Amino acid sequence: MMEKAGKYEFTIDAYLTDFRGKATLPMIGGFMLQAATKHADERGFGYSSMTLQQRVWVLSRIAIELFDYPKNDTVFVIKTWIVSVNRLFTERHFAFEDENGQKLGYGRSLWASIDLESRKPTNLLELYGLSDYINVGLEAPIEGLSKIPALKDNYEPATRFTVKYSDVDINKHLNSMKYIEHFVDVFDIDMFREKEIKRIEINYISEGKYGTDIDILKRNEDGDSYILEMKDGDNSVCSTRIIWKQIN
Amino acid sequence: MMEKAGKYEFTIDAYLTDFRGKATLPMIGGFMLQAATKHADERGFGYSSMTLQQRVWVLSRIAIELFDYPKNDTVFVIKTWIVSVNRLFTERHFAFEDENGQKLGYGRSLWASIDLESRKPTNLLELYGLSDYINVGLEAPIEGLSKIPALKDNYEPATRFTVKYSDVDINKHLNSMKYIEHFVDVFDIDMFREKEIKRIEINYISEGKYGTDIDILKRNEDGDSYILEMKDGDNSVCSTRIIWKQIN
Repeated sequence: MMEKAGKYEFTIDAYLTDFRGKATLPMIGGFMLQAATKHADERGFGYSSMTLQQRVWVLSRIAIELFDYPKNDTVFVIKTWIVSVNRLFTERHFAFEDENGQKLGYGRSLWASIDLESRKPTNLLELYGLSDYINVGLEAPIEGLSKIPALKDNYEPATRFTVKYSDVDINKHLNSMKYIEHFVDVFDIDMFREKEIKRIEINYISEGKYGTDIDILKRNEDGDSYILEMKDGDNSVCSTRIIWKQIN
Repeated sequence: MMEKAGKYEFTIDAYLTDFRGKATLPMIGGFMLQAATKHADERGFGYSSMTLQQRVWVLSRIAIELFDYPKNDTVFVIKTWIVSVNRLFTERHFAFEDENGQKLGYGRSLWASIDLESRKPTNLLELYGLSDYINVGLEAPIEGLSKIPALKDNYEPATRFTVKYSDVDINKHLNSMKYIEHFVDVFDIDMFREKEIKRIEINYISEGKYGTDIDILKRNEDGDSYILEMKDGDNSVCSTRIIWKQIN
């Protein structure tokens, strides 16, 4: 049996970093998905073996917390492991480090598996191998995944976009990292000069379909915390809570 | 001295592919930049050593031709090498293969180097090592890089977008791959069902700055060939010629 936790390295290419010369949240989210994909593949419950069982992984919630963003031309290390499995969900955690083992942050994620035909949840306890990899030796000491409240009042419309070809994944739905991109783009670039996003937490609710117009609503909860919600008409598509901190 | 050509492998992660389960052009363009970055780094004229000399690479033109798009869960191999160097420009070519060595396509690119302060071109012949790596053994047998004509008439407005945080690079200008993304998003997803882009060629003209509204104009040259141009008011920012082919 392979080690329970997996360790993966990513180079922060200069041409992909933002104007601060640091990795962006959509990039880091993309690396987390790559790490999760490889970890699952290597252990027998990855994309291909899921497809053979007419199943596909669906990301339900994710939280990313960073004390420090990786800088361009450095190596970003992600450790990931499975924390729990029940019928409906499995939780996967992440630890982020620089090349010297210095901690940069942590992540948590919650996944379901749906049947490719019926689109209904499948029983994760039946999934060969998954439960064997539950790891109790590592920790991601950040606040847990939570339900973000729907915005019923006290919000302002922030922006609107149309889901396009580059936004959608193999299911013709907005891909998980594009949600992060559209959410962070709500904020003015000047905010990124004085502050950085300390924590982003996302609830994936329904699927943003190709061609739909998505409104993003925004509420400032207090000085540094915002809730944003994507809506396709009256239907909630996705919510996020984004917490900023002053740059030291 | 290292080998003149470099060879780099990229995994086509399922969650990053489009609705066809194939890599997208922005992804392939991103891999090309990663390959170019690594090739240059390993040979002493990469991002860091350029920065030490107060210089930075600027992509001027790029062409990508694909007979076949890589499918999800496969390995995409890029070979890249330097073809020529003169005072102002260096040309770099690419060959794309699958994991069995089957050719998938080719790419060509033209680069200048500018001074970080004056933003003026620097003499590439002075650049230590670069000319030593000119490779004449490999070929990228596709049409050469050309000047795409400006759209003065016979065009239609296709779309308009605002350059946002996620669009910009370390210089606060639209990053090279985001141009491809905005260009391919002009086409309806239904076109990608029957056809695929056989060749995309881009001329980077001026820089798309954060916060500006960019119009994309479009002209159908003939059945399968389109010219698109990004404009910031009267200023041309970037042009592309995109050639589609029927899927076999």
